[in-house]
Amino acid sequence: MSRKKVLKIIPLGGLEQVGMNITAFWYGDDIIVVDCGLAFPSDDMLGIDLVIPDVTFLRDHIDMVRGFFITHGHEDHIGALPYVLREIPVPVYGTQLTIAIIANKLEEATKTIDVPLEVVDYGDKIRCGSLEVEYIRTNHSIAGSSALAITSPVGTVIHTGDFKIDFTPVYGDTIDLQRLGVLGSKGVLALLCDSTNALKPGMTMSERTVGKTFDNIFADNVHHRIIVATFASNVDRIQQIINCAVKYGRKVAIDGRSMINIVNTAVELGYIKMPENLLISLEETGKYPEEQLVLIMTGSQGEPMAALSRVAASAHKKINIVPGDVVIISSTPIPGNEKSVFKLINDLSVLGARVIFQDTHVSGHACQDEIKFLYSLIRPKYAIPIHGEYRHRIAQRNICVDLGLNKENVPIIRSGDVLALTDKKAEVIDTVPARGILVDGLGVGDVGNIVLRDRQYLSENGIVIVTACLDCESGRFVSEPVIVTKGFVYIKDAEEMIERAEEIARDCMMQFEDSGSNDVNRLKSEIRNALSEFIWKEIHRRPMILPVITECN
Amino acid sequence: MSRKKVLKIIPLGGLEQVGMNITAFWYGDDIIVVDCGLAFPSDDMLGIDLVIPDVTFLRDHIDMVRGFFITHGHEDHIGALPYVLREIPVPVYGTQLTIAIIANKLEEATKTIDVPLEVVDYGDKIRCGSLEVEYIRTNHSIAGSSALAITSPVGTVIHTGDFKIDFTPVYGDTIDLQRLGVLGSKGVLALLCDSTNALKPGMTMSERTVGKTFDNIFADNVHHRIIVATFASNVDRIQQIINCAVKYGRKVAIDGRSMINIVNTAVELGYIKMPENLLISLEETGKYPEEQLVLIMTGSQGEPMAALSRVAASAHKKINIVPGDVVIISSTPIPGNEKSVFKLINDLSVLGARVIFQDTHVSGHACQDEIKFLYSLIRPKYAIPIHGEYRHRIAQRNICVDLGLNKENVPIIRSGDVLALTDKKAEVIDTVPARGILVDGLGVGDVGNIVLRDRQYLSENGIVIVTACLDCESGRFVSEPVIVTKGFVYIKDAEEMIERAEEIARDCMMQFEDSGSNDVNRLKSEIRNALSEFIWKEIHRRPMILPVITECN
Repeated sequence: MSRKKVLKIIPLGGLEQVGMNITAFWYGDDIIVVDCGLAFPSDDMLGIDLVIPDVTFLRDHIDMVRGFFITHGHEDHIGALPYVLREIPVPVYGTQLTIAIIANKLEEATKTIDVPLEVVDYGDKIRCGSLEVEYIRTNHSIAGSSALAITSPVGTVIHTGDFKIDFTPVYGDTIDLQRLGVLGSKGVLALLCDSTNALKPGMTMSERTVGKTFDNIFADNVHHRIIVATFASNVDRIQQIINCAVKYGRKVAIDGRSMINIVNTAVELGYIKMPENLLISLEETGKYPEEQLVLIMTGSQGEPMAALSRVAASAHKKINIVPGDVVIISSTPIPGNEKSVFKLINDLSVLGARVIFQDTHVSGHACQDEIKFLYSLIRPKYAIPIHGEYRHRIAQRNICVDLGLNKENVPIIRSGDVLALTDKKAEVIDTVPARGILVDGLGVGDVGNIVLRDRQYLSENGIVIVTACLDCESGRFVSEPVIVTKGFVYIKDAEEMIERAEEIARDCMMQFEDSGSNDVNRLKSEIRNALSEFIWKEIHRRPMILPVITECN
Repeated sequence: MSRKKVLKIIPLGGLEQVGMNITAFWYGDDIIVVDCGLAFPSDDMLGIDLVIPDVTFLRDHIDMVRGFFITHGHEDHIGALPYVLREIPVPVYGTQLTIAIIANKLEEATKTIDVPLEVVDYGDKIRCGSLEVEYIRTNHSIAGSSALAITSPVGTVIHTGDFKIDFTPVYGDTIDLQRLGVLGSKGVLALLCDSTNALKPGMTMSERTVGKTFDNIFADNVHHRIIVATFASNVDRIQQIINCAVKYGRKVAIDGRSMINIVNTAVELGYIKMPENLLISLEETGKYPEEQLVLIMTGSQGEPMAALSRVAASAHKKINIVPGDVVIISSTPIPGNEKSVFKLINDLSVLGARVIFQDTHVSGHACQDEIKFLYSLIRPKYAIPIHGEYRHRIAQRNICVDLGLNKENVPIIRSGDVLALTDKKAEVIDTVPARGILVDGLGVGDVGNIVLRDRQYLSENGIVIVTACLDCESGRFVSEPVIVTKGFVYIKDAEEMIERAEEIARDCMMQFEDSGSNDVNRLKSEIRNALSEFIWKEIHRRPMILPVITECN
């Protein structure tokens, strides 16, 4: 008798850490991986640059890994490739724009990665042993987005990637509902569906509605310079700004490294269309009157180093706000960025700009009615909500249950869960490592909880360092204790307190000398306790207290 | 000829720092102060507990200061009183609930402040030399809220405090539109109006609509325990929860220190009404089945130490979530708290609670139509937008201009500006100190930019401390250099790097010995540069490098 057919689905990230999307599909001797994203650090990951997935599982099964199948070119789906491909050097598949963005990224990050980058078209099917992957057109906030139909001997699983249903997209066609319907009619084992907007009723608006808003703003402001900040990767948004620039006779200049990269790539590949001579450099803008200019730049999330933030802080070398400038912020703050974006708006307003940020953005993710539409079209046996916080995935489960799915057939899984699907059931049978790995500078994984806890503590309380030099042979100190502080208190306000703290340390040292002990650790702990108590009594603070005893030779 | 009549309006905080509302009104020899709030620290004020206004101006004119006139009992309007009254010990005026909350606060904070606390009723007028202050009923998210009409020889100025127009308030009556109309008909010099919701069209919904939502939730969940988190000070909200508890036969337990304080005060003064025996202690909840309980608690903003956050983290000593619990979050995240609130929702959902947070809150601040209503009723000569970020105040100015005010008559002022009003013009004639003062533990003002910059740097990069002991007489080191790090890197991953760093420090020390120099500062700077370069090359990080050279005796 043959072994039971099982398809295993293993999210290696993305469910607890939003971003960092990466999911393995495993049947028999074949593993394919969908996406390979990074996450941006959460507020408690102080000093961390980014978070990448733990691919221990892939490393342990490296002979089975057939390739990375990328749904679209956003950082949370491709950003970890430069790190992960070093260890898992397998082919990477994606549509044309996606692969071009990945190629740029690998080129920038490293010259040492040499894996095949394979451009696929919608409708293409890639066979990997017992698995086959089909690319299906979707809509999202970047061109070239795809859902994947992954067919295994157990059945077909559809992974939506990030998607919305846009009946009037700016570039290309509406999501391929017909193909999804055909697959649904043949029977779909499971649907892994984007949950981002599962709490929002109705339909996400078409990207084209933003174009109409832009047109109105351009029509209303023919005497002023227009500056638009948006996500670098939203080429459809940029196309619409360019369309307005053409219609209203303005030149366009681009700023922000990622914006320039993506626009160049998109123009080269034909995803953005514009007349010749429309684009000018920032330097050339001086030759044109303000009302004939549009500047498109990064920084719509208030990221401190991005172009618009530097403009708002009057720290941009080439662009100064002049009163009357119209600044369009064409994005919605990602949770956590609200205050930065509001600060940006305030700072630009103080400089005299008119800032417009309402109705200038639509989401790239499906709302409740679109999710319902998709389920009704595909009618999968199992629903596996992905891409969203727990609350969003629960909201998608509620939608599924409303549509008649059995709650047991809508598993809410965690990163690292090994979900085994058969035609009879879906159950978590194992777990694999899936905690994010922190990247700080060149260090990957060398900063963890203890270091972060220290950074947190230092950030709130500062540090008080007590040093002294001990002659181990005689057991006597050859120096007075010296106290140095950082991030603690204005020293001029605390000279007397520091002197008294040094006296307390000196008392501890004298007792140590008198005791004849050689237990330096105990001395350190006594100094720490005595100073901690003293400082708390004095000013109700708890700085980190670090005694460093050097030993003289 | 007599001197020109001038009323000076001086916001001492609240315009750049949101929160920390405090505004002085100065005519001749008389100064009155409206509100005395604190601000909560912004993200860059690491380790700071709170921010209080700089009252140098009041201290410099202490003989003229007649009293603090408080509009309502929220922290951003009363929170700095325990600090400020120490220096400016003058009477404090407010409605009954406001004064009761202030009395509690002063009692908790200090026993040494002894100023008259004067309860006033709506319609009362308090004369202070050439100024007279009248209390006028408004609606807001706390009972006892007031607008103030301040009459001076130049004319009458109306300060709205925080307000909305609630036609169906839970406690008391609708804002006293008639009195405002009468004052308007006599001529109002200036209106200082709440800008919080000036970007939002329409009307803010009545507090009573939340009661209807609660009723529906209680009706739908008769078999589950209900937990509601809201702001402690929103006594009308709490009254509505209590009404539902009575209607659906549930007992009520309260948790969170501030919630218990305010509820006790509000019940005592009659602002909250409930049958006897309704309230039980947390300990007593064990005697009742879950479906007969409502818990009301703090923590609706995801504040880490508040009751609901401890429940969500399974760290509450007396309350554990059981699957099926219904948790109502009855507030909207204040900008900056979004991620904490979303984390709260996720954590509670993971524990099996059903979390409801939509339509469970209304704002306490007027939207655009209410602001228009107020201006049309009062028709002031000057409009001075207050209480809001710059973008909100600009939005209020746009509303005023739409209503026909001259843009010049709507000054957008800054904290510290001395705005002089005459019957002819409004202009800023001077500035006074108005930067927030940081409070950390017991220290007031002893943490400033340098300390904060160090905390920021430490939080992102950690610290590397290099110590050694120098014999000043011989100019030779009596110890090897010792390196200790905090918040930098897992030491086990970096032992070799630290050893090499110690060698580099040793090289610097040997060169110093050989040079015969006694410039220890130069040595420190050489060690700092050498190690900084080395560590950057190794792992692209820039920890704070702190050489500490002790000198032996």
